[in-house]
Amino acid sequence: MKPFLDKNFLLQSKTAERLYHEYAAHLPIIDYHCHLDPAQIANNINFANLTEIWLKGDHYKWRAMRANGINEQYITGDKTDLEKFEKWAETVPYTLRNPLYHWTHLELQRYFDVHDIVSPKTAKAIYEECTAKLQTAEYSVQSIITKMNVEIICTTDDPIDNLEYHPKIKQSDWKVKVYPAFRPDKAMNADDPKSLNEYINKLEAINNSPIDNYNDYLEALKKRHDYFAENGCSVSDHGLEQIYAEDYTNDEIATIFTKIRKGESLQAIESLKFKSAMLYEFAIWDHEKKWVQQYHLGALRNNNARAYTEIGPDTGYDSIGDFTQAQPLSRFLNKLDTTNQLAKTILYNLNPADNELFATMAGNYNDGTVTGKIQFGAAWWFLDQKDGMTKQINTLSSMGLLSKLVGMLTDSRSFLSYPRHEYFRRLLCNLLAEDIENGELPADIEWTGKIVQDICYYNAKNYFTFK
Amino acid sequence: MKPFLDKNFLLQSKTAERLYHEYAAHLPIIDYHCHLDPAQIANNINFANLTEIWLKGDHYKWRAMRANGINEQYITGDKTDLEKFEKWAETVPYTLRNPLYHWTHLELQRYFDVHDIVSPKTAKAIYEECTAKLQTAEYSVQSIITKMNVEIICTTDDPIDNLEYHPKIKQSDWKVKVYPAFRPDKAMNADDPKSLNEYINKLEAINNSPIDNYNDYLEALKKRHDYFAENGCSVSDHGLEQIYAEDYTNDEIATIFTKIRKGESLQAIESLKFKSAMLYEFAIWDHEKKWVQQYHLGALRNNNARAYTEIGPDTGYDSIGDFTQAQPLSRFLNKLDTTNQLAKTILYNLNPADNELFATMAGNYNDGTVTGKIQFGAAWWFLDQKDGMTKQINTLSSMGLLSKLVGMLTDSRSFLSYPRHEYFRRLLCNLLAEDIENGELPADIEWTGKIVQDICYYNAKNYFTFK
Amino acid sequence: MKPFLDKNFLLQSKTAERLYHEYAAHLPIIDYHCHLDPAQIANNINFANLTEIWLKGDHYKWRAMRANGINEQYITGDKTDLEKFEKWAETVPYTLRNPLYHWTHLELQRYFDVHDIVSPKTAKAIYEECTAKLQTAEYSVQSIITKMNVEIICTTDDPIDNLEYHPKIKQSDWKVKVYPAFRPDKAMNADDPKSLNEYINKLEAINNSPIDNYNDYLEALKKRHDYFAENGCSVSDHGLEQIYAEDYTNDEIATIFTKIRKGESLQAIESLKFKSAMLYEFAIWDHEKKWVQQYHLGALRNNNARAYTEIGPDTGYDSIGDFTQAQPLSRFLNKLDTTNQLAKTILYNLNPADNELFATMAGNYNDGTVTGKIQFGAAWWFLDQKDGMTKQINTLSSMGLLSKLVGMLTDSRSFLSYPRHEYFRRLLCNLLAEDIENGELPADIEWTGKIVQDICYYNAKNYFTFK
Repeated sequence: MKPFLDKNFLLQSKTAERLYHEYAAHLPIIDYHCHLDPAQIANNINFANLTEIWLKGDHYKWRAMRANGINEQYITGDKTDLEKFEKWAETVPYTLRNPLYHWTHLELQRYFDVHDIVSPKTAKAIYEECTAKLQTAEYSVQSIITKMNVEIICTTDDPIDNLEYHPKIKQSDWKVKVYPAFRPDKAMNADDPKSLNEYINKLEAINNSPIDNYNDYLEALKKRHDYFAENGCSVSDHGLEQIYAEDYTNDEIATIFTKIRKGESLQAIESLKFKSAMLYEFAIWDHEKKWVQQYHLGALRNNNARAYTEIGPDTGYDSIGDFTQAQPLSRFLNKLDTTNQLAKTILYNLNPADNELFATMAGNYNDGTVTGKIQFGAAWWFLDQKDGMTKQINTLSSMGLLSKLVGMLTDSRSFLSYPRHEYFRRLLCNLLAEDIENGELPADIEWTGKIVQDICYYNAKNYFTFK
Repeated sequence: MKPFLDKNFLLQSKTAERLYHEYAAHLPIIDYHCHLDPAQIANNINFANLTEIWLKGDHYKWRAMRANGINEQYITGDKTDLEKFEKWAETVPYTLRNPLYHWTHLELQRYFDVHDIVSPKTAKAIYEECTAKLQTAEYSVQSIITKMNVEIICTTDDPIDNLEYHPKIKQSDWKVKVYPAFRPDKAMNADDPKSLNEYINKLEAINNSPIDNYNDYLEALKKRHDYFAENGCSVSDHGLEQIYAEDYTNDEIATIFTKIRKGESLQAIESLKFKSAMLYEFAIWDHEKKWVQQYHLGALRNNNARAYTEIGPDTGYDSIGDFTQAQPLSRFLNKLDTTNQLAKTILYNLNPADNELFATMAGNYNDGTVTGKIQFGAAWWFLDQKDGMTKQINTLSSMGLLSKLVGMLTDSRSFLSYPRHEYFRRLLCNLLAEDIENGELPADIEWTGKIVQDICYYNAKNYFTFK
Repeated sequence: MKPFLDKNFLLQSKTAERLYHEYAAHLPIIDYHCHLDPAQIANNINFANLTEIWLKGDHYKWRAMRANGINEQYITGDKTDLEKFEKWAETVPYTLRNPLYHWTHLELQRYFDVHDIVSPKTAKAIYEECTAKLQTAEYSVQSIITKMNVEIICTTDDPIDNLEYHPKIKQSDWKVKVYPAFRPDKAMNADDPKSLNEYINKLEAINNSPIDNYNDYLEALKKRHDYFAENGCSVSDHGLEQIYAEDYTNDEIATIFTKIRKGESLQAIESLKFKSAMLYEFAIWDHEKKWVQQYHLGALRNNNARAYTEIGPDTGYDSIGDFTQAQPLSRFLNKLDTTNQLAKTILYNLNPADNELFATMAGNYNDGTVTGKIQFGAAWWFLDQKDGMTKQINTLSSMGLLSKLVGMLTDSRSFLSYPRHEYFRRLLCNLLAEDIENGELPADIEWTGKIVQDICYYNAKNYFTFK
């Protein structure tokens, strides 16, 4: 019986231990997609207590607590931080086999050197010990990141964000690089024309220039794209149900845009055409600037209107959809490839039933110009756990080149999520080792170790064009 | 090499053996959804022979026999019961790796203490030994159920069933509780307006009150819902391709209802609206009465018109569909949740490609009022086997709280199906033990054992509101 | 640690070794579906070098090379064969965990007795050794096939192929049987009416008879179907996105046909109706002649227009689609079954998310006349690897009768693909052995061995009606 979460966690053979400890463990982290707050990084804040840093904003934990029958007062409500933590501690033992169980104890070990199992019995002591540590300089946000051996971070930013904190971070003497990423979801969301119109108004204000027609809009957004580039951005990101790749003419889009500006409602096909047009334009700009473009596909969001009204989006009411993915992906990528304007692209998939579809779709657009040009990205969101990561690694292995994967990312809002890089690395090493143990790969530790290092660090290093 | 089907069947470690034998094995069974015949229970019948109790009505076995090239005469035709059994015995050795192979030998062991492997060689002896036993009081239907340590059974009943046998069972001194369940599939099936109209006529007769419009219809059905409640019912069930959640107005439904009564044909959208309306109304009533509502989704039924004409529905010609599930589920559950009228709900999924979709969808509607309020239900029908159960357990583990699962059910027409509870329990214990063995869970047998007991018995005990 | 690719490759237990070596290894191969070139077989050619026989036409390898950033010049371009091979050798070490890694080294071992690992270091020596061998009589195409213990081959042929090489092969004293297969994809592809019209012109020329209306067309095609039968054909094959089963009248189809002949464009629904009609007619003929009909479903083809224009179809730009499969399959098979005109049928699925759907759909049309009448066929194309084969075997096991599977096929354009039969056999034996080792099957090696032999050889022998 292996001890729980010891140094050989998830490593089921001597070969796995060797691969992880000798090749993977010490490599820096390139976190090329996350949702950390640049203000908190720039200001190098300390969090007030363990609930502040660990529970606030973590909708994974909230969902678990709700499933455990915990009243919302203790989740997003007005109970004290200690009371909230106690309810979380009450829930943890019931999360066994859920990724939260592993993340929880891994994070306590790595950040706080706490090796207890969270439960009502240990709750108070853990809360106090961690909260005390959080007061110290060693636990400022920047110290935490440094401690985790992070080299590069990409935040996720709306085109109308002014990016005031990225230069501040750059000018500091902190060695970690923090870049913005261009995420224009709101700028194309014609499903909510009212909000889109307000968004356009804000963009007018920022650029100090009227946006009267579709061309104005494109120009205004392009200016923001340029501005992001000036601030070190070299990646874009999109969070969509599916790719939109409807045929359209520019005249049609101009007309639709006018309707949006007039506050008129749109037909479904008009919204689809508008989104298709915008998505295409963004991709053209990404290609022009040699950015890497990322598409997160497959989430069905905001399923709970009551909760949306009460506590807003991103609060634990999203889930996995069953959208048609293959044909729109094909149309979109093909259109860009046809004119040789397809940027390096990472496709992330939320419904594991579509893993094979995504992995093989990516293979249609590798053109030999760049190693691993089109990536079937790492397991995402609900899939960011042992089973989901394993499936992504195995599907990519069977249908593409695992060896060229740019590796893991956190996609997280939390400063305590960096151990999921470690988790991914352990799983990866264990899978490769299993093949060696079973005689399905040669016992060439050196070569396999090199591949591990590529996936964990060097592929990302080479793929992205961070300055 | 482990012996086949010995006492440690499916238990691959000492920890698994401990969990199963010390925590799970002796717990009673709450079979909260099955298709047993209440008349046979009330009359405490004995079956005439092994074919009667084991092959008649078991379309799983029929499908296997047809795949094995057995003529229908030996399946649902007029051959003798012994001849039919011999053909089944001929087929069994070819079912290796199919769940039938395990069910067959498990059921022979548990009910009949027969430990032979079924084959043409052993067929006659097994048939005779079991048939002889079936004549005895020990093998009456009630004795069988008692022997299996069953505490509660929910049958599946149409709203127009008169439930005459449930009071009879209640009044007997047999200690097992048998409750009806409200399954109104026929009452909403506007895809077959002719049958629906006949159904409404029957309902008129039962209530002795005319049903001239939609309101009459709702009232008449509501009376039956009340009547079911008076007879101990506290669960509903629906067998649908997908949830129907189209927008509609009550005026539209009233008009559609009139067309149904006039024998007019319906457009697809009208049928969809009608089904959406009915499904919603049933859910409102379930919430009012604090029932648990169950949705079995994803089957494509009656694929073989020839067989349907010759031998009717539920004869082995159904299969797994690929219906759109996420958006209608979201719309339906959201609508109920918005007005705080969402009852405790169990979602069963037939297409394993949708497991993750279902598991995460359930998580959107846990509101902290009830532990495990919205359940991703146990593996169902074609998935009720090792691979399917394992996937359901693993997906639920990764995407929700396995610890709150209300456990297994038989969903069976056969009195010999109770060992699938044992099967589920063994699998569950083995999976948890595997995590402990691998260091992915702490070696806390006591806590893990408590969770096992919750899943196998106590969660259901607490979740349902059986009187 | 097991050695890589030794004689017990993929066999993880003594039981697996016994099953494979004692029961499976020596059986002949019935390759009932492949894309080998009958001209090359008839002419018993020798390939000029290792690139000619191994890289040309192998779009699996091309995709891997493109993902590895290799310039197209070295893939389908004008670089020398040695240069191309060197680029492939450079890529191989990066294909670890991809099926290509196994196929590559298995094929080198089995055909060339080369046991090195392919890499830039070994490239030249391997190329020279294999190329030298390829010059010898032992490496003529017929010798290679004989060496692989192949008994029967079915090529894949268009209805307008004149099948000139099949009689030549038959008349030779070579003992392997080579039959044509009827693959009328082009004859029904109304999505491209212009090409279809040209196709019809060619058919006119071959039959030397005008095709002025739909009836003429059916007659002309039926003649080819007869001609194929005269030349030993007893299997058909279809490569489609999904089954087409739209309702239509013959008048509608006649009108659509006239539009095709006039060069008019078709609406989507017209094309769908036409394809539905043709698919049905072909199936009727297959049933009349007692052929086995095969359907390869689920590929989304030609996703890269640029590559299509430059290098044509089947060059590595196809991928896995997410088409609706259940309902059209049900409608199509049901229509044929209703009139008792459903031929023996094999359904191949490309999207593993649909495996359970396919396995259960097949079960709806077994009518007891033929053992294993409707087959859920072996893992295909992207799924023709360890994970994909395992999933197909496991799903079929859980949802049907694995014991009745007609086994593996190559579906390959390459004479070096025969080891995938060995690969399949090893996997199969290992899975069955695992069940025995775990106590999930009785330790009845003899019976299990018989089942292995059935699946690997005898089931196909009995199912097909090769003369």
